[in-house]
Amino acid sequence: MRTSQYLLGTMKETPADAEVISHQLMLRAGMVRKVASGLYTWTPTGLRVLRKVEHVVREEMEKAGAIEVLMPMVQPADLWEESGRWQDYGPELLRIKDRHNRDFVLGPTHEEVISELVRKEVNSYKQLPLNLFQIQTKFRDEIRPRFGVMRSREFIMKDAYSFHTTQESLEETYKTMFDAYCNIFTRLGLDFRPVIADTGSIGGNMSHEFHVLASSGEDDIAFSDSSDYAANVELAEAVAIADEPLAATQAMEKIATPEAKTIKALVEQFDVNIENTVKTLIVHAAEATDASDKKATEAATGKKAKLVALIIRGDHELNEIKAAKHPAVASPLVFASDEEIKTAVGAGPGSLGPVNLSMPVIVDRAVASMSDFAAGANEEGFHFFGINWNRDVDLPEVADLRNVQAGDASPDGKGTLNIARGIEVGHIFQLGTKYSEAMKAGVLNEEGKNQALIMGCYGIGVSRIVAAAIEQNNDANGIIWPAAMAPYQVCILPMNMHKSARVQEVAENLYAELKAAGIEVLFDDRKERPGVMFADMELIGIPHTIVIGERNLDEQAVEYKNRRSGEKETLKIADVLARVQGE
Amino acid sequence: MRTSQYLLGTMKETPADAEVISHQLMLRAGMVRKVASGLYTWTPTGLRVLRKVEHVVREEMEKAGAIEVLMPMVQPADLWEESGRWQDYGPELLRIKDRHNRDFVLGPTHEEVISELVRKEVNSYKQLPLNLFQIQTKFRDEIRPRFGVMRSREFIMKDAYSFHTTQESLEETYKTMFDAYCNIFTRLGLDFRPVIADTGSIGGNMSHEFHVLASSGEDDIAFSDSSDYAANVELAEAVAIADEPLAATQAMEKIATPEAKTIKALVEQFDVNIENTVKTLIVHAAEATDASDKKATEAATGKKAKLVALIIRGDHELNEIKAAKHPAVASPLVFASDEEIKTAVGAGPGSLGPVNLSMPVIVDRAVASMSDFAAGANEEGFHFFGINWNRDVDLPEVADLRNVQAGDASPDGKGTLNIARGIEVGHIFQLGTKYSEAMKAGVLNEEGKNQALIMGCYGIGVSRIVAAAIEQNNDANGIIWPAAMAPYQVCILPMNMHKSARVQEVAENLYAELKAAGIEVLFDDRKERPGVMFADMELIGIPHTIVIGERNLDEQAVEYKNRRSGEKETLKIADVLARVQGE
Repeated sequence: MRTSQYLLGTMKETPADAEVISHQLMLRAGMVRKVASGLYTWTPTGLRVLRKVEHVVREEMEKAGAIEVLMPMVQPADLWEESGRWQDYGPELLRIKDRHNRDFVLGPTHEEVISELVRKEVNSYKQLPLNLFQIQTKFRDEIRPRFGVMRSREFIMKDAYSFHTTQESLEETYKTMFDAYCNIFTRLGLDFRPVIADTGSIGGNMSHEFHVLASSGEDDIAFSDSSDYAANVELAEAVAIADEPLAATQAMEKIATPEAKTIKALVEQFDVNIENTVKTLIVHAAEATDASDKKATEAATGKKAKLVALIIRGDHELNEIKAAKHPAVASPLVFASDEEIKTAVGAGPGSLGPVNLSMPVIVDRAVASMSDFAAGANEEGFHFFGINWNRDVDLPEVADLRNVQAGDASPDGKGTLNIARGIEVGHIFQLGTKYSEAMKAGVLNEEGKNQALIMGCYGIGVSRIVAAAIEQNNDANGIIWPAAMAPYQVCILPMNMHKSARVQEVAENLYAELKAAGIEVLFDDRKERPGVMFADMELIGIPHTIVIGERNLDEQAVEYKNRRSGEKETLKIADVLARVQGE
Repeated sequence: MRTSQYLLGTMKETPADAEVISHQLMLRAGMVRKVASGLYTWTPTGLRVLRKVEHVVREEMEKAGAIEVLMPMVQPADLWEESGRWQDYGPELLRIKDRHNRDFVLGPTHEEVISELVRKEVNSYKQLPLNLFQIQTKFRDEIRPRFGVMRSREFIMKDAYSFHTTQESLEETYKTMFDAYCNIFTRLGLDFRPVIADTGSIGGNMSHEFHVLASSGEDDIAFSDSSDYAANVELAEAVAIADEPLAATQAMEKIATPEAKTIKALVEQFDVNIENTVKTLIVHAAEATDASDKKATEAATGKKAKLVALIIRGDHELNEIKAAKHPAVASPLVFASDEEIKTAVGAGPGSLGPVNLSMPVIVDRAVASMSDFAAGANEEGFHFFGINWNRDVDLPEVADLRNVQAGDASPDGKGTLNIARGIEVGHIFQLGTKYSEAMKAGVLNEEGKNQALIMGCYGIGVSRIVAAAIEQNNDANGIIWPAAMAPYQVCILPMNMHKSARVQEVAENLYAELKAAGIEVLFDDRKERPGVMFADMELIGIPHTIVIGERNLDEQAVEYKNRRSGEKETLKIADVLARVQGE
């Protein structure tokens, strides 16, 4: 492609309304243009990258046995009423009416339409397993679209849906998809982690997210430095720090701490390490039988809620998801008010601790292995120091209550955990029968009986990958594309071509030679200053740059520059093809 | 692809609600499934065909220098308000509101969005000409979607928009697009005609439609048997049948024709050929000055409309578009009522003719060259026979007033016209400055002055092409794909493979060999009866069928069948690859 016949659209200035680097660079490199909030036109350079991603995704999905279909973007409401999501889905589901005043939605996802297709087309277990995918435009009416195509309203997604009669078959396809996703992100040249994920509202048994690691990510990921283990921080298991506490070396002592209402103040005012302190958090308890009814009744009658104390180490963070999953704790989690605490304990939140506490107590695993530690005395303005379990107070129930931290042991026993931010670019779910039961999508199984289809679903944010890749691959000069995503592999920059017939001839010949070899070349034939041409090509991030100038032509040579390494070399014209094919 | 791992979805029965053959066959061959009125899922076989069409369209557009972009399907209303189409476009434009109650549309076309892009990105004539295209999902809320994907609500279109500073540049790109369209439809193996078209509501100067000829088409096309000339029947010029009338051989005679109120009755009751009769049609006249105001005034005051007589040959049809374009005739065309005729002429519509008619008369070119003809005498129940121009009545103004007929001379002087029905699959327009003026999309021209961009637009109905191709390529057994559109090139049908290890081995080896050669193969490994397998593959329309049976294996041979010719031959296994590559 000649830049003179192209819509390059590069910009020098950083657009004011673009917060993250990928959004800034996509605008500056002429990849997208905003049409309205969360709606973008993919301009030529951006679309080329998008198609590269689509191509890799499609190839790997087909290799994994998935079959491509294309469902409509506009979907009838009745299917969503069947699944229950017409009511349940929030305002991100854009509900529209056609000219006949019939209800439709702009599809944010296609579980309903695919279930409708499969319940009509598949009657027997003999047609299964079946894995159908599409690469298609989706719409989610985000309340606050942001970060360009990272969280836009209209976007391109690869969504796949698999159908089975047994859980084993689902697990087999799930594993195949897991591997296909790893292949896709590896081929695209991304630093990614598959992480164990919360299934959230989609439901089902098992779920992994695929995250591209990048500081602008919206999720915290914990991953082992020595194994494949990775999980959302919210879900990562915090293992015990030691099997047993060290032997006690101090006697327990009650000390007046009138000015120490926080851990920070305690550590500053007294000779105690933060690792030897604990935080006691009082929350509402779940009632043993039919907790939700009880709680509703209490709320209605204004009756006092039962309480439970959660104890974690002074430098740890409570993991509210883990806490709420504990059977003794109300879900969702409700922290006790200061009044409730005062009434129950006789002291305020700054003076709480496990000794002499008259309510159920659950301690985090890390707390269980502490010795000689300090905690509030449940008496306003007093703390105990030198507490030891079983000697001074019985060890209560132990549970995993905290967020993991960098340096924690990996739960799989291999290495220690790092924490990084991640951008979710893929998500795979074992859905089970949620949709097939609601929509009566069944088949005859091997025993000749009708059973609900067991489903899996597998998404990739195709357009988001483009932004995520830039977050991970950029420098002060612009984007640095992984080869598989680069809009062009090579750019040819002829210096002052319009004044030098020799430069022009070499440039045209090289352009023709590389194109004939099937290489995608951007030939900058504009009448621009060399500095402008260099800056544009660095910004766009093309892997290989060939500079043709009078200077080297006597030696039949050109200058080569590698975008990623920054390395420059003088190359014989005859060696250019081999050099750019070598990588 | 193995059918056992595929979603074949073939059906024996013709679906009751499918009117046209392409819709029936697309359902029966498992190409599409209806989700709601005018909304379809493209199932695997259909999507493969759709992608073939997209591929050819994309390649030819790029070859012609167009650059691909991707605009959003959801478009903000403010752009449509700028162009004026928010008001002008009928209910086919689906207007929607987002969660913040802001107005959007589901894009039926993208003139507004592309004009907005180009007015921001292009500032100088140096960046022009520019031709941007996309292959994208569109939505038009058809009041009565029909014929499957032929007239659906959601569909896939290739739309291109070119930008220029001169009419010459526009015409050059228009010609390039014309040629690209011919290449596309030729490569797809379609029998098509580019026809001169009415620009209709889109406006502009010049326009061609591309029609696939098929009896189910909604448009009548006139095309020469000896040249490239083709036009919509409504627009095709009817040339004079002879330069001058033959010499008179009869005297004019008034004859009582009380029972002949129609041409048909006249011909049956009297010794006259229909080619020697004329029809006289009375319509409202346009007033010479400011006709529309005058007519409005007359309508308001109930004043009598002025009339004009249009005369065409007895066996010809009035072309109402041509008539309304005549400066003496009211536009839109209004036929005089029987009362108006009686009052003006003194006789009813069955007794009208040019002799003694006291109003302006316009005769069709074919009428001007008639001699010895019959016409009403403008006296109830009487006709003149043997009328000759200039001898019996002055020849009035002559104009092209009729529809062309099969057998007419082609207006380009080459050959005669055929009439056929066509399905519109492409349309190219010279838009001019309609959108760029409304949306203030200008550039600096060579003189350094701001001028409105001159635009062209170029559409192809990608999904409609699939249906149109089937209308043109089918037989009693199903679809007959042109090679470029076939979902698979070859199908392998092993007979009773599950009982014969030898058949299975040959089938598997051939499948592997053809795939390795890059051929798309559908391998029917289902446990089905041979009859079912044959019927399915004929229905799907795969060009080459290879039947593997015990019968031929002793001779290392298989049976080959060509879907289009029906021809069968016995082939050595070693010759199969060359045979299927040969075509």
